[in-house]
Amino acid sequence: MSLLTIGTMAFDDIQTPFGHAEKVIGGACTYITWSASYFTNTINVSSIVGHDFPQEEITALEERGADLSGVEIKMDGKTFFWAGKYHDNMNQRDTLATDLNVLDDFNPVLPDSYKKSKYVMLGNLTPAIQSQVMDQLDGSQKLVAMDTMNFWMDIAMDELKKVISRVDLLTINDEEARQLSGEYSLLSAAEKIHDMGPKYLIIKKGEHGAMLFHEGKIFYAPALPLQLVKDPTGAGDTFAGGLMGYLAKTDDVSFENMKTAIIYGSTMASFCVEEFSIENLKNLDTDTIQKRAERFKEMVSFNL
Amino acid sequence: MSLLTIGTMAFDDIQTPFGHAEKVIGGACTYITWSASYFTNTINVSSIVGHDFPQEEITALEERGADLSGVEIKMDGKTFFWAGKYHDNMNQRDTLATDLNVLDDFNPVLPDSYKKSKYVMLGNLTPAIQSQVMDQLDGSQKLVAMDTMNFWMDIAMDELKKVISRVDLLTINDEEARQLSGEYSLLSAAEKIHDMGPKYLIIKKGEHGAMLFHEGKIFYAPALPLQLVKDPTGAGDTFAGGLMGYLAKTDDVSFENMKTAIIYGSTMASFCVEEFSIENLKNLDTDTIQKRAERFKEMVSFNL
Repeated sequence: MSLLTIGTMAFDDIQTPFGHAEKVIGGACTYITWSASYFTNTINVSSIVGHDFPQEEITALEERGADLSGVEIKMDGKTFFWAGKYHDNMNQRDTLATDLNVLDDFNPVLPDSYKKSKYVMLGNLTPAIQSQVMDQLDGSQKLVAMDTMNFWMDIAMDELKKVISRVDLLTINDEEARQLSGEYSLLSAAEKIHDMGPKYLIIKKGEHGAMLFHEGKIFYAPALPLQLVKDPTGAGDTFAGGLMGYLAKTDDVSFENMKTAIIYGSTMASFCVEEFSIENLKNLDTDTIQKRAERFKEMVSFNL
Repeated sequence: MSLLTIGTMAFDDIQTPFGHAEKVIGGACTYITWSASYFTNTINVSSIVGHDFPQEEITALEERGADLSGVEIKMDGKTFFWAGKYHDNMNQRDTLATDLNVLDDFNPVLPDSYKKSKYVMLGNLTPAIQSQVMDQLDGSQKLVAMDTMNFWMDIAMDELKKVISRVDLLTINDEEARQLSGEYSLLSAAEKIHDMGPKYLIIKKGEHGAMLFHEGKIFYAPALPLQLVKDPTGAGDTFAGGLMGYLAKTDDVSFENMKTAIIYGSTMASFCVEEFSIENLKNLDTDTIQKRAERFKEMVSFNL
């Protein structure tokens, strides 16, 4: 089944205790698409870049089977740029620079062929743009998912809640779930968020894994303990890409299949953080992914 | 098999966003013993209390099958007292008072019948006292486990490392594992801690669950998401009690059985935090415990 991904394509400047990656490829949509491409080759990409975005990066995604006709290239503008520095514990980061550049003019107009995509992943963007994309869909979607962040909760909560009410699946982190719901207990937070609209809620907890909530049921996926986390940037988007790619491939949104999808999402995220930028996502194969997914299974199995 | 538990028996004064429990029963040894008593009734308890500790609390533990002949009652002293206040997020707390009282004179002399206990749980105490207890064991133990905390790492690291080198299983939280090893990655931390002596390492992560490391293998147990966490005090000790009680009952220290033991430990901890003090640990039964343990199984099961 086809997957529509929308979000930023960017240049990142990333400092972690393990190095400094200058002007490397980033952006939610980039991570989502690379990750999803290991599960499906019917990906419709909507984004915007400037004249400075490398053509070979576009080509590389096309070679993975993605359709990038919905990526606007603004020749008179520069690509969105984000610079950040991670603290020693890697769980916190400071934003050093955010240059919106062409993102300021992002006005996504979906090609007709995109509008019937059965699976949709709205990457973190202004709620207004996420809504605008939803308005263009033909209504035949099987699952629409969105990511967001605390920033939009701080400055545009009403607009954010409107778009949240329209999606099937929301992915946020634990602090964001608490902020959005006003509840500290994640169980209570999940109930309130379900009441806002999404039938499925995934709460991402970084190194502590991810939780899926659906109709009173809970699934807990651990994160894989890694010897080295070089760069957490894009982990959440890579997770979403693996998850949505697997759902698009299997075309099954049952709770059972969603659990499997989360494991593949977590698997992809574990590769992502081992290297800077999308470096580690470019050279994977099905066998490598499957072997790592099986490590999640081993790690949580027990007898009672 | 017999289980020796050693640690504090105390009065606690606990403030959480859900209430204020004044002068309630606390102490590592109390939590460990109550929790273990649902798995084995051969528990040898070593601790110290003052004249003010309620006789009915001693009797209640004896009725659970525990031998409290090794609990010294100092008639001219007062029981150890701890007062603390939890922050709104329940993950952090401030200590408001620590009155050592009789604990200052704690000089545990094990009754002869205790010395051949096959399973030993050294609750959090000064490393010197933990060593002193080990010196009295007859050497026939199948598994000696210890708990500790960052406080001893700050002020008595050398002595702490000595006792750690003598035990089979160390239980600490993630921040403590990082402090003890000097490694941020929990995988690397586990390797270093194994090198210090313990063949088994359990890293407790509170609401994020617990991890077992042994001979290069990893097991990840989630924590049960709860609607209400009223009081996290004693959760780690209750975990240890369930774990060690189950091991003593089954007398099997294989990695496979240790995983099951961790699930029972986590199950007991989930009951503990739902009420103040040991309130919720007093009225459990095997069925209730088993049903909750099965929820852990459901929560992590998936197909690949």
